[in-house]
Order: sequence, then C-alpha cells, then structure tokens
Amino acid sequence: MDYPKGFSSFGINIGIKDKTKDFGVIFSEKPCKAAAVFTRNNFPGAPVIVGKEHVRDGILQAVVINSKNSNVATGDAGISNSRQICAEIGKSLGISETLVLPSSTGVIGVPLPMQVILPACANAKSNLKPGNLEEVAEAIMTTDTRRKISLRKIKSANGEAVIFGMAKGAGMIEPNMATMLSYILTDAEVDGDLQKILKQCVDASFNCISIDSDTSTSDTVAVLSNGLAGKVNAEEFRSALLEICIDLAKEVARDGEGASKLIEVRVRKSRDEIQARKIGKSILNSPLIKTAIYGGDPNWGRLVMAVGKVFDEPIPFDSLEIYFGDLPVKGADSDKLKKLSEYLKKNSEILVDVVLNTGNYEMVFWGCDLTEGYVKENAYYTT
Amino acid sequence: MDYPKGFSSFGINIGIKDKTKDFGVIFSEKPCKAAAVFTRNNFPGAPVIVGKEHVRDGILQAVVINSKNSNVATGDAGISNSRQICAEIGKSLGISETLVLPSSTGVIGVPLPMQVILPACANAKSNLKPGNLEEVAEAIMTTDTRRKISLRKIKSANGEAVIFGMAKGAGMIEPNMATMLSYILTDAEVDGDLQKILKQCVDASFNCISIDSDTSTSDTVAVLSNGLAGKVNAEEFRSALLEICIDLAKEVARDGEGASKLIEVRVRKSRDEIQARKIGKSILNSPLIKTAIYGGDPNWGRLVMAVGKVFDEPIPFDSLEIYFGDLPVKGADSDKLKKLSEYLKKNSEILVDVVLNTGNYEMVFWGCDLTEGYVKENAYYTT
Repeated sequence: MDYPKGFSSFGINIGIKDKTKDFGVIFSEKPCKAAAVFTRNNFPGAPVIVGKEHVRDGILQAVVINSKNSNVATGDAGISNSRQICAEIGKSLGISETLVLPSSTGVIGVPLPMQVILPACANAKSNLKPGNLEEVAEAIMTTDTRRKISLRKIKSANGEAVIFGMAKGAGMIEPNMATMLSYILTDAEVDGDLQKILKQCVDASFNCISIDSDTSTSDTVAVLSNGLAGKVNAEEFRSALLEICIDLAKEVARDGEGASKLIEVRVRKSRDEIQARKIGKSILNSPLIKTAIYGGDPNWGRLVMAVGKVFDEPIPFDSLEIYFGDLPVKGADSDKLKKLSEYLKKNSEILVDVVLNTGNYEMVFWGCDLTEGYVKENAYYTT
Repeated sequence: MDYPKGFSSFGINIGIKDKTKDFGVIFSEKPCKAAAVFTRNNFPGAPVIVGKEHVRDGILQAVVINSKNSNVATGDAGISNSRQICAEIGKSLGISETLVLPSSTGVIGVPLPMQVILPACANAKSNLKPGNLEEVAEAIMTTDTRRKISLRKIKSANGEAVIFGMAKGAGMIEPNMATMLSYILTDAEVDGDLQKILKQCVDASFNCISIDSDTSTSDTVAVLSNGLAGKVNAEEFRSALLEICIDLAKEVARDGEGASKLIEVRVRKSRDEIQARKIGKSILNSPLIKTAIYGGDPNWGRLVMAVGKVFDEPIPFDSLEIYFGDLPVKGADSDKLKKLSEYLKKNSEILVDVVLNTGNYEMVFWGCDLTEGYVKENAYYTT
C-alpha cells in the first residue's frame, strides 16, 4: 500500500473492552498544516472539546484515538483525561501536547480506563511503524464490519503526493459530520485555506449521509498535510480530497449497522441546496422506505409520502418524477411493480432518483436499509 | 357498551384485500355540528381533499371508511372515486353527499376497487345497527393488532351525554395528526367553536405521538355532535374530549407496528412548547433510544445524545436531569445501571423524564420501542 511520506503509525489492542484493536496513533515527522470539522451535537465529547483547541492554530503533528469508549458526558474529569492523554503522547513523541488531536469513540458516559490508556501513550513512540495506516483504520472501528480506506495520488513539485483517508462509522450517524471519525493524511503541500477546502468537501460527502438520523457526540474529520511531497495544484488537491471524502462516506453508509444495501438518493432539478437537502434527507431517513428497500418491496407510495412530509417544501405532485434506478415508479401497474421488485432484490446499491422540477440544483445522499440486524445490534449494545 | 344517542353504524368485510373487516359507515339520525383536522402531508389522499370540502361548513351526518387501500396518489380518478362514494352513501341514507366524510387507509398508489365498494355503499342503510360503533373501530384497522376505543360520560341538560372515540394507527405515524384515522361521536350539544376545541385537544394528544417519524397522507380526526342529549358544560366537554384523545393517542403509540413497549417522554421545566416539542420528539424518534428500551439496555448516553442533537436548542449539560421512571440516569454506576436495566425489562410502559431547567413549560409525548417486528412488518407490506 502507498503511504504519504513522513507518517508513521500503529493500531493495537490495549484491552479497553475486549481483544480487538482499540488504540491507535498517527505521527508525522514534520508538523502539519491541519484542519478539522466536528460534530454539531450540543454535548460534544471531551476529545472534541480538546481537539478544537488544539487545531485552532492550524497545526497538528499527531492523532491519538481509542475505540470502545467515547469519553462523552464524563464531565470535567473526561476533559482532564483527554488532556492527559495528549500530554503523555506529546512526551513520548517529543512534541507539544497542543500538536496532538485526540479522539475517542464507543459507549457514552463511562470514564476512560486511564490505567490501560496512559501506559499505551507512554509507549507510543516505540510502537510506531512507517506508514502502517491501515492498522489505525482497524483500531478505530466499533460496530463497523470492515475498515474504510480511500487513497488518491496527485502530481506534486517533488513528483507525486499521496492523500490517504480512513474513516469509521456504523451507527448514530446523521447530518453535520455523518461519520464519527475520519483522518486524512497527506504529504502534499497545500496552498490556501485548508479549513475551507475541508468544509466544502465534508458538506458534499459526510454531511450527505445518514444511517439512522442520530447525531453522534464524537464526529471528527481531520486532514493533516506535512508538505513533504512538495507543492500541489490546489484544485487537483481539492478534487482528490472530495473523491476520498465521498468514497469514505459511501463506505460508512454501506456499512451502516445491520445494513444489507447502500441507498443512493439523487435529488435533481431542485430549487436549491436547502430544498434538495430537506427532501433528500426525508427520503433517506424514512424507516418505511428503508424497510421496503430491505424487503425488495416496491412500495413507491412511501416515496411520495416522504417527499410530501416536508411540510415547508410543497412540490407539485404532477411534475414530481421518482425512479428506482431508471424505472419510473409513480402509478406503476403490476407488470412494472414486478420489474421494480426485481431491481430492488437484484442490486446491493439502490438508486432512488427524484426529480423535483423546481429548478436546476442537484445533490446526492447516501444511506442504507433498515434491517432486523440494526435492531438486534442496538438493543443490546452496552450489555 | 354505551353509545351516544342517535348514532347507528356497521363494519363489515367487502373483500377489498382479504377476509377481515374493511368497510364501515357511521350515521347520525340528525345532522351534526362537526369539526375535523387532517394530515399536513403535502400529498394528502383523495378522501382528505374531499373531506375538507365537506366539513368546511361545520356540518356532517355520516362517515364512510374503507381500510386496505388509502386512495392516495391516485390522481383525479381517485378524487372522483371518493366523491362517488359519498354520493352513493348519501343516496342510500337519504342525505346530501356533502354531509358525508370519507376516509380511506391502507396501501398508497393503488386505485380503489370501486366494483366492490359501490355496491356496499348502496346497501349502507340496510346494514346499519343502532350504536354498534365497536364494529367500525374494527373495520378501520390496518396493521393495528387491536381496536382502539375510549368513552366518557358527562352531565347534560337531558341527563347524560356520551362521547365515544375510536382510532386506528400502527405505522407511518408522526407529527401533525399522528393517528391515521379517529372519529369521535357524541350526543352532547356543544356551544362554542368545535374546530378550535378539537384542534387544542389534538395538539396535546395525537400531535404528541410518533411511531416512526413518517407522516401519513391520510390522517384524519373528526368529531360529530348531534346534540340529542342536550347542552353540556363547554369546559367539561373539552376536558372529556381531551381525555379521550389522549387515551386513543396512547393506544395508537402502544400498538405501534412491532412495538413491545409504550414510551412516555415527559419534558419538564422547559422554556416553552417549541423547545419541549423539539427535544421530546428528538428523544421519541431516536432509533438508538427505541432499540435500547426494547433491549432493556440502560444506554443513557443515547438520551444525552438525543437532547444534544437538537442543534438550535442548547441545554446546559450540568443542569440537565434525565430519569427512567424516578431513577436518575446521568453518570449511573454499575449498581444503578443494574436497577435501570431492571426498570426497563420489568415494565411495559417506560417513562423517560427529562428536566431541562430552562423554564416552567411541561409536555408529554408518547411513542414505542423499535423491534425486529417493525422491520419485518414493513419490509413486506404490499407483497
């Protein structure tokens, strides 16, 4: 696997909950220009509070992440724990604690087991291996069934720059930071406002997915660029970063808790982003549509219902077009219903194509079906 | 069973889909002062469109309802079908078609089987039996597992007035007419603005429940008062009507598709109705809370998450109180978690008591847990 130059990392098990990997560190040999966006939940986790402080000056050099425990709703002690983790990592790596971005993901409201985390922080430096980022992608998983990685290469002053993205998702995933955690590492030297570029990419990717309409308290997307590969074209970088964000967002949607199908909702010919977002999300989050797609049941009336329940965006019924793939659904007779059902049953990626005919704005959203698996997984999560 | 004077009715099977009751008529020997509220979905069903016209002058004398087919998204033909049903009922009962409120509930987007419905309308008069309203309560069921009836008696000029309410619910149930269909019949003579009284009662009952956050295209609540029992005290009437609406709304929530538990969310000491409604609904509709309650898992962090995801209503974390029943949940240690789990597992009615400490406004909401049963029921509804 290709890695951006100058990054080393590890992902290991330290026994926070079970024997799966639960602790990871990413380190750049050079301080990085950095940007991050965080959850809009009003009760952000302690690491989000500390992380916002540390990224404020636009410079980071390391990321430390644990899974299995989110350090959310843990009060002042939680914040102090998060600071202590950064301090220990800083000490081990020989950098200031303010260059460390902390993240935690997992159960809410339980104090971090500092007795196992602090020794792991102290040993960070000795565990680092060059590149090795897929090990971190594994360590940040909670209910994810697979690690999520996306990579792009673009031309740079010194030859080639690598942009390496990873993410974790699975549940408690809705707007404004849909993925819980994502880190994008690059050796590209990026001119311009990295925070603005990241925000644009996130708005068209992670902020367009929903697993279950719930908004996590830990969501974090961070990009760290150490510039070792030299300058790159800003537009090429933005475009590659957007592709990575969309790749990872779709992977998160596809791997939603219990999901059997990826649902892509394309809202076309809408008035503007506001209208597209409201109607796209209404469809994406409708339990009745999600279950119908799971069952391969072409119950298209539910699509009409979901467009119609956006009270403040009335759409003329007659000009509204809705398709599964390229098959029109409104008023389908029994022959057409059979074809729609075949489409739903045959494909693991379902396109819901909605044409509003109120303007020319287009947006794409991603989610997943709702299955018994989601219920089972979440009925007994902590116990 | 006690009935309001002057009402007759029937509920029978006419073979719209299977052998269960699917067609009902309610008739008052005297024209009734009437009021109704309907779905806010932008694509209301044909019966809602026709019903709004017929109730506009505040007078109704009959209700005709079919289940198994909602006559929604059926275009001009659907509206014309709905008018024809009212006309046939009017002819059979010897009243104007504009005195008939039509309702349909069931699958969306399929034309009504008029060949079985019209003969049933023509025979309406001969099928009527005095009172008999529980038969109608059965005929309007779709995925409901039981009929829903609530009755109150109040003093009247001629002795006693009866208020008899029925409802059906089950799925596609969220704000602004949470129940799909409810009819409240009374012989009380009510002074004052019946529409206003009904709206107030609905806002504090049916508009406070949610099964799955989806908003049906058919929702209708109607009250018909023929005055045969003479005048009643307006405040006593309002209070009895509210009790009936709350009874029925809770029954609808308790009998949500696949539900195993009724969830009551009490939002106390909130700033105002807006804040209470946003936070109450956020909790009530959270799939992660609904599944945790189903599993008896005291995952209280999800309650914090759901309060926090109402971005525009930030609540200070430290003064936020949350209880399951009377057991505080924030920061529960393992002993307390065991008690919380026992509370969730032992009870079929779960109280989530949330104290915001931002004011003095109180509101109550009702919903249900999310189980594999909901998924199964809705994955294969039309087929």
